[in-house]
Amino acid sequence: MTMFTVTHRDAATRARTGIIHTGHGAIETPVFMPVGTQATVKSLDFNDLHAVGASVILSNTYHLHLRPGEDTVRNFGGLHRFMRWDKPILTDSGGFQVFSLGVERGGTKSAANGQGKLVKINEDGVTFRSHLDGSAHHFTPESAMEAQHKLGADIIMAFDECTPDSAGEAYTKEAMGRTHRWAARSGRKHRELQEASALGYPQFLFGIIQGANHEYLRKISAEFISGLEFDGIAIGGESVGYNMAATKNILHWVMPLIPEDKPHYTMGVGYSPSDLFAVVEQGIDMFDCVAPTRVARNGTLFVHRAISPTFKININNAQYRADGGPVDPSCPCFTCQNHTRGYLHHLFKAEELLAYRLATIHNLHFFLTLMSEIRQAIQADRFSQLKQEWV
Amino acid sequence: MTMFTVTHRDAATRARTGIIHTGHGAIETPVFMPVGTQATVKSLDFNDLHAVGASVILSNTYHLHLRPGEDTVRNFGGLHRFMRWDKPILTDSGGFQVFSLGVERGGTKSAANGQGKLVKINEDGVTFRSHLDGSAHHFTPESAMEAQHKLGADIIMAFDECTPDSAGEAYTKEAMGRTHRWAARSGRKHRELQEASALGYPQFLFGIIQGANHEYLRKISAEFISGLEFDGIAIGGESVGYNMAATKNILHWVMPLIPEDKPHYTMGVGYSPSDLFAVVEQGIDMFDCVAPTRVARNGTLFVHRAISPTFKININNAQYRADGGPVDPSCPCFTCQNHTRGYLHHLFKAEELLAYRLATIHNLHFFLTLMSEIRQAIQADRFSQLKQEWV
Repeated sequence: MTMFTVTHRDAATRARTGIIHTGHGAIETPVFMPVGTQATVKSLDFNDLHAVGASVILSNTYHLHLRPGEDTVRNFGGLHRFMRWDKPILTDSGGFQVFSLGVERGGTKSAANGQGKLVKINEDGVTFRSHLDGSAHHFTPESAMEAQHKLGADIIMAFDECTPDSAGEAYTKEAMGRTHRWAARSGRKHRELQEASALGYPQFLFGIIQGANHEYLRKISAEFISGLEFDGIAIGGESVGYNMAATKNILHWVMPLIPEDKPHYTMGVGYSPSDLFAVVEQGIDMFDCVAPTRVARNGTLFVHRAISPTFKININNAQYRADGGPVDPSCPCFTCQNHTRGYLHHLFKAEELLAYRLATIHNLHFFLTLMSEIRQAIQADRFSQLKQEWV
Repeated sequence: MTMFTVTHRDAATRARTGIIHTGHGAIETPVFMPVGTQATVKSLDFNDLHAVGASVILSNTYHLHLRPGEDTVRNFGGLHRFMRWDKPILTDSGGFQVFSLGVERGGTKSAANGQGKLVKINEDGVTFRSHLDGSAHHFTPESAMEAQHKLGADIIMAFDECTPDSAGEAYTKEAMGRTHRWAARSGRKHRELQEASALGYPQFLFGIIQGANHEYLRKISAEFISGLEFDGIAIGGESVGYNMAATKNILHWVMPLIPEDKPHYTMGVGYSPSDLFAVVEQGIDMFDCVAPTRVARNGTLFVHRAISPTFKININNAQYRADGGPVDPSCPCFTCQNHTRGYLHHLFKAEELLAYRLATIHNLHFFLTLMSEIRQAIQADRFSQLKQEWV
């Protein structure tokens, strides 16, 4: 069985449906992947994740390396058993967090080159300090592969350097070249580990295209990463997801250059419903974002546009204090089926723990239901129509 | 149907089983009541409460009066609908919190007389400042009854003054006299409200015995409260539950004086399994305590004595980092059936929200299962045997 099959292509756009087959079940694409940074999607248990419709979740190698450590997770039988999640998992390589979190403690990162006192990059890899306790750590493409093999996710990522958009062109180009050499090393190490693997299921390695907002660098990177033996192609970068105008440009440059028969993954996309449509119509199959779960914990709840033109309400607002209706009357999630806006408002005002879980359940259910509708629309050749209804 | 029926009496002790019939179902006694201070048992949803075996929960009038307000709750159809809990609820009268929390903000309470700048007591009632925002509030026996009728709990409590143990004898006696007059006023107001009630189910009013650690005051109070038309008899006081030696003395004094045909409730009991046995064998039918849920959120988990002689483990301890077993191998709760000590250790170390819920589920399941075993043992005339196995 091939790992990825495209099942339908939209006539008018690059949108497509597909299936990724893993040792922990199939993933229907396009798919939104909830983020479980520290081996838990914040506030939810595994039953909640099943109930909201999650078919794959993401976890972070950087965080798990620092705590509890990949060896500890391996001794528990891998990440699936450790966190009691039997469906597919994707782990990132730690690259993004090394550069974004590994310098926060000292606050000395130089925007010019992405370096700082707490992060030292050379050809071998990167030395950084833990944002938790300041302890020194060294990641290389090889060690990132070893960590991800120990964690045992179904989909793993090449080790890359994610440069800030503010880095100069020269530095971005230099970092991109290093990311390409690290991609090749990641692939070699992965194949070596895969051959000796005792996991009992395959791990699929994705390469990552970098190049920030420079068209020619993105194109070079797309061609280089596409030329390696990766199972999927990811598009990384500070702008991706966070700046949708830049994301659209990047996708416009790279999508024609990357293989159609591999899954396409934009890292960090999913701040709003319109973002999902924007990448799906460019042919993206996978994406993840902390936003739906993070904003939930601040009381920002997603709703259909008939309720709010921004797709969001802030349940902390006084107008919801006496509101006896559900967050979104059309939503079949646990929260909307059982609780009122007024009760949620009360729980948030009282800073009660239940608030965060009920809000997270709703937001993930909202995103994952929309993804299901998008898949159905593509299959029925009415993706553009659905987009028009939403955006 | 009578509200309370004793179904079995232990031959050797005062322990007994019974059933309290309410408009939201039956409560088998002796019963431990989880505390849901702000209309939520912290971190749990209503399904969790059903799953851990809760048959009645407690909520706090003081907190709900301040936020969201009893009128708001009534407009949502009462506390059961507001928090989506269809089994029995007990609300306290607010008295205990007025005196313990109403003064925390200013910190000016005088231990000599239980008064302080922020709490003014007179015959009419008590004026206090909110611990949330310092706003002024006035509670009387009548307003406490009105608030509890609006909240709509199945069992409600007379308004009392809970004096600190450090208050002098003279002040304790004076406050007790006032508590008795407030008890009579609470009863009159309750009957008036009950007659006009549109709730569709009865509310049962319990009186509260005070008198601190003075034997003659406790006996006077027991006789006085027993002489009024209450549906149940509660024993209050700073020591009750918190100081089990004092609690045992108090029960020794008052239990022979209170009616056998009414439910007996010690307010604040349940810090450990041995406490449950201690009050049940004195003929107590109901008790509540924040301890099992509060300590859960610090990582203190209850286990059988074979695992720890103190009935507790601290999951934060390094020894649990690599522990692949459940918290308590004999426990059928969701947490023990699905998660390892090592994963819980990780969640607590990472301060993940899921930690608090999993720990709370376990501790409540542990307490409520023990209560079920105690009821079965009483029915089978082997209560003392079960106690010996445990304590």
